[in-house]
Amino acid sequence: MSRPARHVFVCTQQRPPGHPRGSCAAKGSTQVLQTFWAELQKRNAYEKVAITYSGCLGPCDSGANVLVYPEGTMYSGVTPADVPEIFNEHLENGKTVERLLAPPELWS
Amino acid sequence: MSRPARHVFVCTQQRPPGHPRGSCAAKGSTQVLQTFWAELQKRNAYEKVAITYSGCLGPCDSGANVLVYPEGTMYSGVTPADVPEIFNEHLENGKTVERLLAPPELWS
Repeated sequence: MSRPARHVFVCTQQRPPGHPRGSCAAKGSTQVLQTFWAELQKRNAYEKVAITYSGCLGPCDSGANVLVYPEGTMYSGVTPADVPEIFNEHLENGKTVERLLAPPELWS
Repeated sequence: MSRPARHVFVCTQQRPPGHPRGSCAAKGSTQVLQTFWAELQKRNAYEKVAITYSGCLGPCDSGANVLVYPEGTMYSGVTPADVPEIFNEHLENGKTVERLLAPPELWS
């Protein structure tokens, strides 16, 4: 891919059932990732947005976690239903989706 | 983790042997990742640097690929021996390691 204007990392970390930290995968992050990829295709936004899955981003309790660079914006508790809003507001227009921001004690 | 000043993504994508695109894992990226984590620990740099593995970053032919945000700097052909230099120059001092930059036709 060419260098994107914005790069989305979706945590898809898995952990065994019952693990005390839980995981983003257990909170549905694979579906979040698939929804980001589907939106990318629908919008044909390959020249300006990249979507990549990643290992653990830290605040496992509040997953599914999605991190957007270059801003370094961490969204938490993301569901597939939130993905179009993140695309419309942040990825295409540079506006933070305040309601999904990770708590400042976890990422600031 | 708290928000890092610099965030390193190491591609650890795997593909089956003989796959035409190859993969960063086949080019030793797991060892690169382990070396980054070992340097992070050695330098106790957890407050300013994060190291995360990721899925495919694009230029598979020139792996192992390492992407540093917020700059969006892509290094290619990275080996474990290169990791201390990336730490010293880029992660701790903000200077690009020119000799490891991905070719501009792949990332610009």
